[in-house]
Amino acid sequence: MAGTTEAPAPAGWDYEDPRPAILFDLDGTLIDSVYVHVLAWAEALRRGGIELSVWRIHRRIGMSGGLLVSALARETGLELTADDVQRLAEFHALEYERQRRSITVLPGARTLLRTLTTSGIPWAIATSGNEAGARPALDLLGAPGAVLVTRDQVRYAKPDPDLFLVAAERLGVPPARCVVVGDSIWDLLAAQRAGALAVGLLSGGYGRDELERAGAYRVYEDPADLLAHLDELGVRRPL
Amino acid sequence: MAGTTEAPAPAGWDYEDPRPAILFDLDGTLIDSVYVHVLAWAEALRRGGIELSVWRIHRRIGMSGGLLVSALARETGLELTADDVQRLAEFHALEYERQRRSITVLPGARTLLRTLTTSGIPWAIATSGNEAGARPALDLLGAPGAVLVTRDQVRYAKPDPDLFLVAAERLGVPPARCVVVGDSIWDLLAAQRAGALAVGLLSGGYGRDELERAGAYRVYEDPADLLAHLDELGVRRPL
Repeated sequence: MAGTTEAPAPAGWDYEDPRPAILFDLDGTLIDSVYVHVLAWAEALRRGGIELSVWRIHRRIGMSGGLLVSALARETGLELTADDVQRLAEFHALEYERQRRSITVLPGARTLLRTLTTSGIPWAIATSGNEAGARPALDLLGAPGAVLVTRDQVRYAKPDPDLFLVAAERLGVPPARCVVVGDSIWDLLAAQRAGALAVGLLSGGYGRDELERAGAYRVYEDPADLLAHLDELGVRRPL
Repeated sequence: MAGTTEAPAPAGWDYEDPRPAILFDLDGTLIDSVYVHVLAWAEALRRGGIELSVWRIHRRIGMSGGLLVSALARETGLELTADDVQRLAEFHALEYERQRRSITVLPGARTLLRTLTTSGIPWAIATSGNEAGARPALDLLGAPGAVLVTRDQVRYAKPDPDLFLVAAERLGVPPARCVVVGDSIWDLLAAQRAGALAVGLLSGGYGRDELERAGAYRVYEDPADLLAHLDELGVRRPL
């Protein structure tokens, strides 16, 4: 071959500013709340007369609450009205609130967010939970002013891409330049649909293989492990 | 090739009685208790001043309690005395007891055990838990007279093979003719060390791939799914 051709820039790519932005899921990704959510849903469903194995609930955490209840109802063959779904979601919120005191941030989460901020890397949090539930977590994370996109602000939560698309827009960064970090296959599916790269964390209790099959190009243990490998995401820290 | 040679019988094989025996794990395999154990351990460790991510606890459930605490202490870099371990195990037992009322059997568990019994297939339960914790589960399972081997009866719990070896001996069936059914990689590792075949269940919250890598030659969702595929284990029901 004589001569080379310059590669065309992918949509949304800016050679002047190639720095990525990071879009984080919240539960199981930054705070250690997945297992509390799991048992809160189990208790809510039980109060609603729905007996369902706990592992099936675990595998649905991170998706929209409405979708979660519909999916679980389908698995049990029940017909639920919109009122039923609403009531179950309220049971869950009450039960989760009762357990909230026991929830901590995941190892490395605070340092990771601070490092991104001081490195000038834009980041946001996008969660299928609602704002009332998510807001207190920002204080735990030492980031009360973080860009936060919640279920109340979009039409559809994960695995639809809306939450990540809105978060990218808030940061002013095209989705193609964003890296989504999440612990559930619903995060990774939503990331793919948003056209972002996806990174998985084991801290929500999924296995590595499940996350890779759902589209994670890297899987780390938790925020601390991700922080130790930030270079693999193309994050350059100022020297 | 002229003529055929008769295959030698593997150790412990009896052509007169080739029926397998089934050795079940308890938590996450027959009863839906893994997530309650996980949060009970999280609470016990917190009371003991040990902060540990919940997913790491989940991945240790099913192994001996002493080994679990030692492993978790290693991950956190703490030095624990035998007294510390004993105290944490007591905290866990108290917390688990407090939540016990919410625990149910997994779908299909009762029918599966009854089907094996009426088909003349010997079966037993072998758990890393102690007898006081395991005994009430037999009533839930409708099998108060089941052969039960618990942590108190062996030197080492899983992933050592002792529990399954004793269970096989109690049934009078060589381990090589036993199929171990469990939800955790510790069950599957112990099964391999006992020289038994291993089958995994997703009902403890591990991913399929994790169980296959740990030696499961088949993975089913839960006892109901296993019951629907009993023929794949070589279990012949009387016509």
